[in-house]
Amino acid sequence: MRVTIVVLLLVHYALSLNNGLVRTPPMGWLAWERYRCNTNCAQFPDDCIGEKLFMRMADRLVSDGWRDVGYEYVNIDDCWPSRERDANGRLVGNSTRFPSGIKALADYVHSKGLKLGIYSDCGKLTCGGYIASGGNEKIDAETFAAWGVDMLKYDGCYSNETSRKVNYPLMGAELNKTGRPIVYSCSWPAYEGGLPPKVNYTELNAICNLWRNYGDIQDSWDDVVDIMNWWGDNQDVLIPAAGPGGWNDPDMLIGGDYTLSLDQTKTQFGMWAMLAAPLFMSNDLSKLEPDIKTVLQNRDVIAVNQDVLGVQGRRFIKQDSIQVFSKPLDKGEFAVAAFSTRTDGTPHAIKFSLNDLKISGAKFYSLFDLFESKHLGKYSTAEELDIYVDPNGISMFRASPISVENIFVEEVFETII
Amino acid sequence: MRVTIVVLLLVHYALSLNNGLVRTPPMGWLAWERYRCNTNCAQFPDDCIGEKLFMRMADRLVSDGWRDVGYEYVNIDDCWPSRERDANGRLVGNSTRFPSGIKALADYVHSKGLKLGIYSDCGKLTCGGYIASGGNEKIDAETFAAWGVDMLKYDGCYSNETSRKVNYPLMGAELNKTGRPIVYSCSWPAYEGGLPPKVNYTELNAICNLWRNYGDIQDSWDDVVDIMNWWGDNQDVLIPAAGPGGWNDPDMLIGGDYTLSLDQTKTQFGMWAMLAAPLFMSNDLSKLEPDIKTVLQNRDVIAVNQDVLGVQGRRFIKQDSIQVFSKPLDKGEFAVAAFSTRTDGTPHAIKFSLNDLKISGAKFYSLFDLFESKHLGKYSTAEELDIYVDPNGISMFRASPISVENIFVEEVFETII
Repeated sequence: MRVTIVVLLLVHYALSLNNGLVRTPPMGWLAWERYRCNTNCAQFPDDCIGEKLFMRMADRLVSDGWRDVGYEYVNIDDCWPSRERDANGRLVGNSTRFPSGIKALADYVHSKGLKLGIYSDCGKLTCGGYIASGGNEKIDAETFAAWGVDMLKYDGCYSNETSRKVNYPLMGAELNKTGRPIVYSCSWPAYEGGLPPKVNYTELNAICNLWRNYGDIQDSWDDVVDIMNWWGDNQDVLIPAAGPGGWNDPDMLIGGDYTLSLDQTKTQFGMWAMLAAPLFMSNDLSKLEPDIKTVLQNRDVIAVNQDVLGVQGRRFIKQDSIQVFSKPLDKGEFAVAAFSTRTDGTPHAIKFSLNDLKISGAKFYSLFDLFESKHLGKYSTAEELDIYVDPNGISMFRASPISVENIFVEEVFETII
Repeated sequence: MRVTIVVLLLVHYALSLNNGLVRTPPMGWLAWERYRCNTNCAQFPDDCIGEKLFMRMADRLVSDGWRDVGYEYVNIDDCWPSRERDANGRLVGNSTRFPSGIKALADYVHSKGLKLGIYSDCGKLTCGGYIASGGNEKIDAETFAAWGVDMLKYDGCYSNETSRKVNYPLMGAELNKTGRPIVYSCSWPAYEGGLPPKVNYTELNAICNLWRNYGDIQDSWDDVVDIMNWWGDNQDVLIPAAGPGGWNDPDMLIGGDYTLSLDQTKTQFGMWAMLAAPLFMSNDLSKLEPDIKTVLQNRDVIAVNQDVLGVQGRRFIKQDSIQVFSKPLDKGEFAVAAFSTRTDGTPHAIKFSLNDLKISGAKFYSLFDLFESKHLGKYSTAEELDIYVDPNGISMFRASPISVENIFVEEVFETII
């Protein structure tokens, strides 16, 4: 098992986009799910798509400690451009909503120690009907680089299978030619159904740094569950596709929005960490409940996501509406998560051993609960764990190998004291 | 319209169970949804079905201000009895979990200024397989009365259509004969599909104080939505069935449990108030987030629920995944609620006038937002309201008639100051 993983990593490494970026999954904030195409600044001065919104979120990322735990990108989505290119054929931001221009916004974001992402589309128009980059890849890539943009989300509206095959690689090449390191996020596979043979993940890895495999997330637990199920059901395709520099993207974190409970927020966050997913929140950082903020800033969970191996977790158990995943980590450690889609009132027990999750390499592991921040004790790989999972909740722990010598020392020590 | 309502109220009054109880919808706490049949006190000493749980909740109802806003019942559900009747053929509580007996628990609850509810079934066994009252209606009613029980939820497992027709009225009669005022909650219509011709709401009104029309609620927003849709779809049957002394029961409030967000909690609570529903929370009162508690203790929303007219709200608008209900209140006032099942990220606008909700009686109404606690201004009944509703959220207000003289005075006053 371990040998297989190492081989897959090597294969991935050799083929992935070699711009040196996002060796661990990118983290930040992205406007779309929460703010959509709200351009009504008269009625929603704080929430419309404009420079004030992105500056406000940049301020929050710093002042509320998000940057310190790893969230570094502030990403614009659709509806930012003017309706016309400028006299030189360049994209420009809507002059009412981005009066200082995108370059000034990038400077502001950089001054905060953060990075700026922007959005365009491989067709003639964006999904929201704004001017897009199809046919203008070179000038737009140069414009983004000149502005100091650090990431591009490249959508696929107003395109077809044939045009996408040309235009996604083309924009990737133009971004590379600018010489500026720009993370390239491709919506391409989501437009092809996300699976081979229509999606060639080997090719995608050579072109993009991350890619949206599946539909847009909505503010809905049902949608979170649907995404997690799809990831589990298609893991034999998805796991080998991902690794340092190239990531499967199940879309944004919606914790802190309107519809997820605290438990559901933990579940999405924990599972996105298990899946080595990009962690882009889309919420109003100024309106988060303290307990939601605590969840989304959990350093132990983030460490699982940011593990240097970059291996996507695998589902080993799906029974009684509970699913159990494990994710190999550096230095022989593993992360384990059991999440529930049950609705029957009380925590539900699930029993499994580390062996059931193909966790091996040591005979004993020390387990640490990542949301409860407590040691669960040490277990042999054959020993049965009896885990209770809340309805729609998650139980998540880190398993660290214990050498036989260490166990002996520990036991002697316990005997002495 | 007003005339129709008055007539319906009179009809209802004449036919409803005349034990003088629950002239407004009952409020309290009920164990089932959150605690189910958890009898594992070794592993869950605080959460298993036993006297400690109910005493803990009684304590909380008092110490945390719930009693002061109207929550007065502490209700036991399934799995409380011993597996055998006693030597005199009487029900007894499980001796391990209710070591002091139900009478002592009733005394404790009463000493707190609260009331105790209990649970049985019209079949031989409860849904959880415990001893039930079918065939022992007289002795069990007398036992409940002797214990000082104030309410009985009477379930319908291990029964059939024929036996229910006999046993539900029979237990009602036996309760009445005890001379103790005991609120009688019948699950009967839920077992018949909730609709005529199988359910005769006129008869039900003469027998029961409240009745479960539909399936058990689960810890799930989808289930809350399903219930609200069923209530709206069948309102022409349900509205005339309900009124002082006899209530349609859409089942427990699940705010504070595992799966509802704050907005979803507001929506369920606000809509249960609009539907003149019994308000029984099923949650762990010692683990509620402060903002959830604030919602469930909102006095303005509770006042809508407890309005003396006891008229169930009616749905007038269902479009774009937003539904708008209005509920006639005493003194010519109305409550209005618009809730959303949308998941598209941002608040969504809906436009309607008070006329669209058949609100009449005055030309102008003053509107007060019940969750935001703010005045929205005065509107003519023809004027268009432009309401924004959060995804899965609710906007709810009280409309108070303004006489033309008052408007004149107000306007003069506004001119002067």
